[in-house]
Order: sequence, then C-alpha cells, then structure tokens
Amino acid sequence: MSQSLILNDDRLFPAEAGVRAIARRLYGEVKTLPIISPHGHTDPEWFATNDPFPNATELLLAPDHYLYRMLYSQGIPLEKLGIASKAGPSEADPREAWRLFAGAQSLFRGTPSAMWLNHVFAQVFGFTERLNAETADSYFDVINEKLATDAFRPRALFDRFNIEALATTESPSDSLRHHRAIAESGWGGQVITAYRPDPVIDAEHEDFQAALERFANLSGQDVMSWQGYLQAHRIRRAAFAEAGATSTDHGHPTAATADLSPGHAEALFRTIVAGKASPAEAELFRAQMLTEMAAMSLEDGLVMQIHPGSFRNHNRQIFERYGRDKGADIPTQTDYVRALKPLLDRFGNEADLSVIVFTLDETSYARELAPLAGHYPILKLGPAWWFHDSPEGMRRFREQTTETAGFYNTVGFNDDTRAFLSIPARHDVARRVDCSFLARLVAEHRMDEDEAAALAVDLAYNLPKRAYKLDRPRRKLAA
Amino acid sequence: MSQSLILNDDRLFPAEAGVRAIARRLYGEVKTLPIISPHGHTDPEWFATNDPFPNATELLLAPDHYLYRMLYSQGIPLEKLGIASKAGPSEADPREAWRLFAGAQSLFRGTPSAMWLNHVFAQVFGFTERLNAETADSYFDVINEKLATDAFRPRALFDRFNIEALATTESPSDSLRHHRAIAESGWGGQVITAYRPDPVIDAEHEDFQAALERFANLSGQDVMSWQGYLQAHRIRRAAFAEAGATSTDHGHPTAATADLSPGHAEALFRTIVAGKASPAEAELFRAQMLTEMAAMSLEDGLVMQIHPGSFRNHNRQIFERYGRDKGADIPTQTDYVRALKPLLDRFGNEADLSVIVFTLDETSYARELAPLAGHYPILKLGPAWWFHDSPEGMRRFREQTTETAGFYNTVGFNDDTRAFLSIPARHDVARRVDCSFLARLVAEHRMDEDEAAALAVDLAYNLPKRAYKLDRPRRKLAA
Amino acid sequence: MSQSLILNDDRLFPAEAGVRAIARRLYGEVKTLPIISPHGHTDPEWFATNDPFPNATELLLAPDHYLYRMLYSQGIPLEKLGIASKAGPSEADPREAWRLFAGAQSLFRGTPSAMWLNHVFAQVFGFTERLNAETADSYFDVINEKLATDAFRPRALFDRFNIEALATTESPSDSLRHHRAIAESGWGGQVITAYRPDPVIDAEHEDFQAALERFANLSGQDVMSWQGYLQAHRIRRAAFAEAGATSTDHGHPTAATADLSPGHAEALFRTIVAGKASPAEAELFRAQMLTEMAAMSLEDGLVMQIHPGSFRNHNRQIFERYGRDKGADIPTQTDYVRALKPLLDRFGNEADLSVIVFTLDETSYARELAPLAGHYPILKLGPAWWFHDSPEGMRRFREQTTETAGFYNTVGFNDDTRAFLSIPARHDVARRVDCSFLARLVAEHRMDEDEAAALAVDLAYNLPKRAYKLDRPRRKLAA
Repeated sequence: MSQSLILNDDRLFPAEAGVRAIARRLYGEVKTLPIISPHGHTDPEWFATNDPFPNATELLLAPDHYLYRMLYSQGIPLEKLGIASKAGPSEADPREAWRLFAGAQSLFRGTPSAMWLNHVFAQVFGFTERLNAETADSYFDVINEKLATDAFRPRALFDRFNIEALATTESPSDSLRHHRAIAESGWGGQVITAYRPDPVIDAEHEDFQAALERFANLSGQDVMSWQGYLQAHRIRRAAFAEAGATSTDHGHPTAATADLSPGHAEALFRTIVAGKASPAEAELFRAQMLTEMAAMSLEDGLVMQIHPGSFRNHNRQIFERYGRDKGADIPTQTDYVRALKPLLDRFGNEADLSVIVFTLDETSYARELAPLAGHYPILKLGPAWWFHDSPEGMRRFREQTTETAGFYNTVGFNDDTRAFLSIPARHDVARRVDCSFLARLVAEHRMDEDEAAALAVDLAYNLPKRAYKLDRPRRKLAA
Repeated sequence: MSQSLILNDDRLFPAEAGVRAIARRLYGEVKTLPIISPHGHTDPEWFATNDPFPNATELLLAPDHYLYRMLYSQGIPLEKLGIASKAGPSEADPREAWRLFAGAQSLFRGTPSAMWLNHVFAQVFGFTERLNAETADSYFDVINEKLATDAFRPRALFDRFNIEALATTESPSDSLRHHRAIAESGWGGQVITAYRPDPVIDAEHEDFQAALERFANLSGQDVMSWQGYLQAHRIRRAAFAEAGATSTDHGHPTAATADLSPGHAEALFRTIVAGKASPAEAELFRAQMLTEMAAMSLEDGLVMQIHPGSFRNHNRQIFERYGRDKGADIPTQTDYVRALKPLLDRFGNEADLSVIVFTLDETSYARELAPLAGHYPILKLGPAWWFHDSPEGMRRFREQTTETAGFYNTVGFNDDTRAFLSIPARHDVARRVDCSFLARLVAEHRMDEDEAAALAVDLAYNLPKRAYKLDRPRRKLAA
Repeated sequence: MSQSLILNDDRLFPAEAGVRAIARRLYGEVKTLPIISPHGHTDPEWFATNDPFPNATELLLAPDHYLYRMLYSQGIPLEKLGIASKAGPSEADPREAWRLFAGAQSLFRGTPSAMWLNHVFAQVFGFTERLNAETADSYFDVINEKLATDAFRPRALFDRFNIEALATTESPSDSLRHHRAIAESGWGGQVITAYRPDPVIDAEHEDFQAALERFANLSGQDVMSWQGYLQAHRIRRAAFAEAGATSTDHGHPTAATADLSPGHAEALFRTIVAGKASPAEAELFRAQMLTEMAAMSLEDGLVMQIHPGSFRNHNRQIFERYGRDKGADIPTQTDYVRALKPLLDRFGNEADLSVIVFTLDETSYARELAPLAGHYPILKLGPAWWFHDSPEGMRRFREQTTETAGFYNTVGFNDDTRAFLSIPARHDVARRVDCSFLARLVAEHRMDEDEAAALAVDLAYNLPKRAYKLDRPRRKLAA
C-alpha cells in the first residue's frame, strides 16, 4: 500500500487554534533565516572534494546510528544494513539494505527520525509518497539518480540549504587539510572546524598512545613532558583557530573538573603517559584537562563546550565486532554541581570565558544546569542533546530551564549531526518547537507577542551566532 | 449530599475539540478489544472454586493498598479498615470500615483510584450516585447483594470483562493446584501463572529458609547444593510452563545483575544457604540469579520480567504489626546502565531471549531505559508501573520513551493488580491515555491517522500478546 | 520604545476556551480570599517600626536574589546593583542601579520574576507602561514618591494585601523584640515568627560558635552540655511559640536524619561543640538534631518544616567577597527514602506530629515524596519551592504528586519570600496555576467541577491554615 507523504505547514504546532495562529506568526519570522550550525559532525572532505554522494544507503542509512540502532533493537543484524565491522566493509547489497530499512518504517513512528527523514524525502528529493516496502526500490533509484547530478553535490546542497556557517569537529591530530582545501577553493561556504582533544586526553581510549604520537608530530612538541604536552595543545588550538574554529569540544564520561597543584598535575600526567593510570587516575586527568582547557580558552578566546554523560560502547559484543559509535552509547546520571565546582572556583566569574554545557540527563535541567547558568557569568546551556534532540525533548528543555535561566543563558540550536541532508529538517524542527513554546507563553499572557517575536529570532539566529562568536570578523586561514 | 455518578464518554481525552475528535476515533478502534492481562496478582483460587466474593469491604477495600495507604496517611488506623495484622484478622465490622472509606472519598480526588472505583461502581454495579457518607450504606448493601448472585461470581465476571488471557503470579513453592483445577474444570477462561522465584532467591526475606524447604519438596532436588538448586528452578519452571506460564517475574530491590565464574557463584551460594550472607552478598546473589534465570529463559523460552527499585516495607512499625505489603513500599532511585551490563554483556544480543524491564524511577525513562531498549534486541520496556500506572504517569511514559525507543520496543499495558473488578477500568484508562497521546501526534502532524489507528490496536492488543508469547499455541496442562 | 503593561485577567489560564472558562470560574472562588503566608523571610522590623521603605532599588532590587543572580549571569557586577559586600555597603547610585536593571528586562522573559514584577508594577504602583531603559527614570521617581506616602508604609500595604497571617523566620538567638513590638503596638496584623535553629545546629556555619554563645545568653542554659543544649532549644521554642510561632524550619544540605543512642548523641555533641567535627560528623549531628526536633515537636506541637538540598554559597569568589545568600545557592540531588527513615522509624506513625517536607530535586516528587506522604501520617508535602516556585514548576508539582499523594497531603502555597511587595503576586500565580490544573482535570472528566471548586478553596486557604495550625486560637504573647 502506498500512502501520500505531505509535510503539513502546521506540523509541530499546538493544536489549539489560537495558540497555533501565534506559533504560525512567530515561525513566519524565522522560517527563512540562514542556518547557523555551530556544532556537528559532517565530514569536511565532502566540501573539500565536492564529489557526489554514493547512494541512498551509504548516505542516509549506514552512517545514521539513530536509524540502525532502532532496526538492530528489533532484530535486524547490523551487517545487513551496510554497517562496516572490524573485519571490513559490509557485504550487504545497498539495495537490499535499503529494502530492509524501508520495510521497517513503522518502527520510527513517533520518533524524530521519522520527521527528519520525511523532511529529507519531501523537501530534498521531492517524494510525494511515503517510504515503505512497496516504494523502496523507486526511492532507492530516484535518490541515487539525483545524487549523481550536480545539484546534489555537497556544496550545491550546502548553498541550497541556506547554511551561513557549519562547524565540523576534528581531533588535534587531524591535519585540517580538508578545511585548507575548502578555504583555497574559492567556494564561499563557511565550513569551520572545532577542537576536540578527547583522543589525546582520554587515557582509556584504545588508541590513546597512537593519538599522542600524531599529536607530537603535528605540533612538533615533546608531548611526553607535561609542559610540552600543554604547549602542543596551544599550538594545535592556534592552528584550529586559523582554520576558523571558534570553539573546543569535550566529550567526557562525566562533567568532573579538577584544579590540581602544578606538581600534582605533572605527576598525574607522568602516570597517564606511562600507560599506568587506574580508571580513577584517568578520570582525574580528564577532569584536570577541562580546567587546563578553560585556562587556554581564556587566552585564545575559543568557546568551550562540555558534552558529558555518555556511557560509550555499552554493548560489549558490538564493540568487539564493530568498534566504536555503533548506536550503543547510553546516557548516565550526571552530576554538575560538584563536578564543575573546581573549574568554577577558578574561572567561574571571568568576563572573557564562555563555557557551554550539555547534558544527557534531563533531571539536571531544572535542578542543576538552569540554576548554574542563571548565576555564573561563564556558563551557558547547550540545547537539548542527542536522544533529547526531539520535539518532546526540546519542549522539556524549555519548560525546565527557562524559568530559572531565562532564554539568554541558552545558545540556540545545535544539530550535532553527521547526517548532512537532515540539517535543514533538524533546524526546522527546533524553530517550530521553540515557536510553539513561545506561542503558549503568549496565549497564556505570560509574555507579549512582540517579546516572543524578538525571542524567536534570537533563538534561531542571533544567540548561536553570538554564543559561538560567529558574529565576529573571521580570521583568514594562512595559505 | 448525594451527587450523580457519570462516566463521561470522553473522559481522559484532551479538551481541544480537534484532538478529542481524533482520540475518539482511535479509541473506537480499541474500545471493545479483548483484554490481555499478562502480568497481575489476582488469586487463582477465585477461578478454581468460583465461590462468590464475600462483601464490599473484603473485595474492594481490604486488599487494595492504593486505597488504605491513602486513608492511613490521613490518620485512619489500618485495623479500622479491615486489614489483618500479625495478631490475626481485623475485628472491624465490614460495614463500619466501608463507612470510613465512603466518608473519605475526597482524599482520592485526582488519583487513579477515584477513576478506577467510579468505573467499577458505575459499570460493574450500575450505581448512578457517587459514593460518599450518605450513600455508604446503600452502596454496601447493593454490592453485597449483587456479589451473592451468579452473575457476580469470578468466572462470570471474567467472561463479562472480555478477558482473553489473565496471568497470576506464583512462587516456585506454590503447588499450582488452583491452575490445575481451572484447567480440569472445563471452563474456557485462560488463567495462567507466572514464575516469581523471589522467595527462594532473596536471602533477606524473613521466610527464605522455609521457602527453600518447600522448594526442595516440590522439586525433589537437593536445593542446598548449587547444582541441585539450579536444577530445582529448571524443574519448577517447566511445571509452571505446563500450567500455562509464558513468563517469569523478578522483584528485586535493584536492577543489579552479575555474571560470576561458576566457582564464585557456587561459593556465594554456599554462604547464602548457610544463612551467613551479608547484605552485599545477598544483593550479589540476587544479581547473579537474574543472569542464571536469563540463561534458563534462553533454554525454555519463558519471557523474563524485571520489576526493580521498591524499598519494601519501609514503615518499621507497620511491618512489625501488620507484616509485608501494607502500602508502605517506597520507590528508590534505580540505575539500569551499569546494573544490567553483566547480563547484557552475556546475553544482550540473543535473538531468542526477551527481557521486559520496568521501573519506579521515571528519571530512567528517557535517560536509560529508552536508549537501552532502543538498541538491545533482548530488551523491551514494560508499561508505567504501580505509582505511575495513572493518566499522568502513562503520559510521561509515552512522552519520555517514544522518541528514542519507539512504540515497538514497548509491550502494551499490564494491570499488575489484585483488584480483579478494576481490571476493565485499568485497561480502559490505558487505552484512553494511549489514544490521547496518539491523537496529539496526529493533530500536530507528527504522524498520520492511519498510523495512529494501527498503533492503537497494537498497543491495546497485539503487542502484549506478542511480547508475552500469548499468540502461540497454548501448551496443554498434563492431567 | 515604551510599551503598555497590562495584566490580562486570563493570565496563566490554559488557552483552550473550554478549559479556560472552567479555570476562570474556579479562580473566581479564590481570587479574593485572604492570604495565608505561613513561611517566609520578610523582616519583622518593617512592621514593628512601620517606617517607609527607602527607594525602588533598595526595596525591589537589592534584596531580591532572583533578580540580581540573573543580571550577574549576564555580566553585570553585583556592586553596580547596590549589593553590599563584606567591605561594606555598595557605592552604587540607586538610580544608576535601577537603570541597569530596567535596561535588562528582556533577560527575565519567561521567568516568574517577570510576572511578579509586572504584578507589583501594575497593581501596587499603578504603572501602565512596561519597565525598560526609557521608562527607568519615571519608574524610579514614581515608586520613590509613593513609598514616601502613608499608604505605602509596611502596615498599610499588609492590610491592603489582605494578609490574614504572615510568618517570618528567626534564629534561636533572635530576641524577637520586633514581634513583641508588633504585638504591643495595637495594630491588628498577624505577624508571627518561626523557629529556624540552623545557626546553632550547623557546625559548618562560619558563625556557629558565636551563635551558640548568644543561644546560651538568651536561654540561660549551659549550651555546651548536651542536656543544657537540648533544654535551651526547649526554652527558645517556647518563647517562639509565645511570639506566635506555630512551626520550626530546618534548612539542611541533605534530608538525612539519625536516631542515635543517647550516649552516642552526647559524645557526638561534645565533638561538635569542641569545634573538632569532621564533615561527616557535622552531617550526622544535623541528622540527629532533626530527630531531636521532631521529639520536641511532639511535646510542644510546633509543625516541623524540612527544606533540604541546597548547596549553599557555591560560588567561592562571590562568597569570599560578598558573603552568604548572594544568589549562588544551587540545588543538589536529594534522597528522602533512606534519609528520612531513622526519623520515620521512630515517629512516622504519631498522630500528633506533622512534618512538612520540601525539595529542590523534582525527581523526588513522584518517586519518593508522593509515595512517602501518601502513606505516613506525619508527612505532608510543601509546595513547589524556590527555583520551582513558578508556573511550570507548580504544574509539575501537581502533575507528579497528586496521583499518589492526592491534594490533602499537600499544604497549599508558601511564598517563602523576603520581597514583601511581591506576596500578592506570588499567591495569585499559585492560585491561577492550581485552578488551571484543576480545570484540566474537570475538562478531561477526571473530576467534577463541584469537587474542583472545593479543592480550589482548600488549596488557597483551608489547607495552609490547617497544616500550619493557624486555625487554632492564637496564644497571647506574654507582656
């Protein structure tokens, strides 16, 4: 059975007619604003080479852990979905993988994936029937056909999507050659990087020692000495800033920070690089490094992002067979009040430092994060993240943070995605949900509509631009 | 003052006219579907003997901890409500107890108990005025009169309630004679059992040693040896499966699991049966037994249910005077991410194992349970449980789990009740709340109505039947 | 740009017309009821001397941590807002401070502060344009002018606000002379005190030893002996009761209680007063003192309030420069199930004891507090507190506690404020939010409207009066 696919203009707006009318008006103010995407995981190589994307499965399914984790939870093996394992690329036929996916669309009912996919199918590819077992092949063929055209190359889509700025995320040991190639290409798209030093900070990462070696090579420093290691960070941060970076990013298991004496820090570092760290020492080192990174941000102006609280690679067997990042990361309870105190004790009142905090533990919104951000000058709240980047998740974020932190201690939306085609869909969902929240406040006479209209634009455009310093003159990349 | 009692056809539906109209249509699809009750605590003896229920107080008040805990919280002594103590049965006159209850109805305003009671009063007994101090006696008389008639005997009500399958819960040391009597009676009602081995697993239970003795007698095994003990479980599980069981159930203080080496497990077992276990050892043994039970489920196909996180018998004085299960169980914070990992490391990816997880800690819905169930093939989420088996609780369950786990990693509704007469009321509330949730998604254009209609039927009927394997040919009970 | 300031009659009511109509009718029942303010932090000296309030900044901004914490979070230094530091009073010009505040009103969009302020501006001072940079000076002038008139003196406002009873909060070492002055003044306003012994219980408070000395002087007891210390509490509690107190209040970092043997308690006390307590011992002593206070409440009938879970003075630098209570208190995760058990084991079933529990950790509402209050006779739930004293916070409180604890295990509203002029605004918000919640239950046919109307009056007036024993004949203050 085929069914029509329609993106209703009022989607995500509250049903009550009066509130919906307000939401529509507010959304009218932001609908066509350019996209600011200050944090995400797209691949800069796409924009450097501008090669066509390969096919529907490799573009839309295989890299999207939201999709294949759901399929896997219902018994579909990863290898049938085109997911590479440690043994090598999947041997699945892309069309067969696509058919499996198409036949299982009911699993996504009520999930943001369904909304994002339908937006991509309708807006980017022009489909008018839903994806299902019957339409699977025609979808596969049409998508592949379009991907082979110039209009669907990465840069053309970037321009069509009205993206004003897009940040990718790289490790300190990345050469940034793709960003250099983009800058030298003459194409005007603003694709910047962000400094994510986890691989050279997390002693529990299986590639830690190898990452340190590349870090040494790229920075030219003796990274096995504490001072050389810190200097290497400074050098690479400067290189990232030259490649447009305005921020760093830190994805630790917890939000723990530390402020050790120089002697203690150096002794800890020696244990770490000797490969002898206990889990508690590895944790303490990560904690100390957040404070060191804050100190460097105070010098070089990079905005600091902290993304804590994911238990990575929870499924042992999947990790052993497929490796990292295979949809098996699970959020954990996360404390911020005690965890951030050492960093805040030292830098919490600095006018020139900005730290954006995220959470996967929604219980911290009203209890910890809004009170912290509603007091400390350096703290801002990142938007609803990952599993909570969804209509209900965003609504809870606003309902639970606004009354204590207000709107101006938040930073607008992050899509945080590697699913490039879904970026307009994701920003559109965020704008609709924020306008719906504001519309309710207006309808309940908790705010006037002129205030809500100003806020809608701030949340969609001004706040992310300001919070990530994208409103400042862009540094030129050295040739 | 007497007031009319009316069950409005639109009860629990959202007020907005458009959403309500959708909810009505969706509810129309499920309203008359048979009841699948795959987990509960009714007494199989009722259906075995089919004796009339005694009176209003003994049927509706004295066994219902939802009711008497509320009355007790406002200063009404348990003994006045017909609750037996360790010293023996209550000496309260059933009519006096009923009057106390009737006069305190305002305490239940806004609680699910009020909705369930009114449903029972209106639909089962035909009352048209509310219960209160004035109508107390006529209620008591009319109920007792009806209970004495054949139409109100247990089997007649079971048939009238349109129950397709009803599971009770028994300990391994239960003889299952009532289930045998039901099977031999020629009555067609499907009343099955479920295997709840807590009494022979929890060394902190005051009757642990006595339960072990009965376990030995019924299984014919030397349950004081580790191998004999495990074998006794296998034997009793098989007997339960013969009596229709399709599931086991585990009500531990936490969700902790363990996967000890055989030698370690055996040594721990010896400490346990010697009565020398520390609280930590008792906890570790319960944790290990969850993994042992999962291993047996992989062999015999019984679906495993985990109901963790209740601090049982919190009120010391009530426990000393009245014993267990007197409305003094309090939920506690419950971790799943680390707790379930040992079991998941071993069995998390098994195609032939199904583990249904419940929680009393709603903070785990979006943070832990939906991400776990949205990835691991063996995990499904049980419905909103106990204190959260309520309109707001069910709504939060859907709002907080759907976006990450979807609907198909959930298992429909469990009434989990010993209040037999309230079963239709409870399933009706669940159906109405689910239809209301779906109606909002439709009204906000997050799902098409045909999808919502299919989901409504799946949630009300297909999912519980499938999740509890009640869609498979029923094994015959050996004569 | 100046904009009109209008308090819409329907503010905070749900947008849907049918629900709003019900909310309006319910609110009509409670709108003009007298205010019962059983817990707060106004200054009794205001009512004792009845001197005019100084100026807009000193009355409305400088004492209100909700306001200046938000301004500080956006980089405005506290000293510019008129906040005194340890070095002395702020040198900021009150008009300049007011201008800073006026120009930053957009920060409060969506916060309860905005609603409270607008209520005060419109209802108390009669403004018809919003406060902003343009209207800052005229606001400042008009407010100061009015404050100088007799109609704006503390007692006149108290009467105009229709306050039936107002409780302040004092330390055991307060002489209560202001309350005595009020009683002797012939003015009829009921301004009572509450016994807050934290300063003589918390060994980690920097003024602990000095507070003990004053405690000894006022009580005439040897407070360095355990029996003398306990007797001093009894004496001061009696003095507070004479000054109208009906309650005690306890603001501990956690909800921990203890029930030590007399010998253990006395030994712990000796360590405490010797100034040698470890943090764990200080915590244990606070825990033990909650149980001691409960024992005394059982004797003298004072209702006990527990306000746990705030990490006080989290910002080290602000604490060092400005001292306590400067908007830098942050909620923490708070356990109640294990924490309260020692006290409940001893006193949980006492008919003559009443303990009102508050939380800053909303996760405890449905999981712990509602189940505890829905069972234990001594427990009642205080309203949504501090950061959660807001429309969304109050809604969550009702949604998450009602189904398990009902309404009658709650105690109505507390404004808990030192911002005297905002008291009517805060009670009005609470009444509107409760009526909106009840209206939804009526519209969804979960309650009849006559029940909701009775509840609205109970929540606004009867419950706080009863819970705080303000419905009993008032003791006369000894001359």
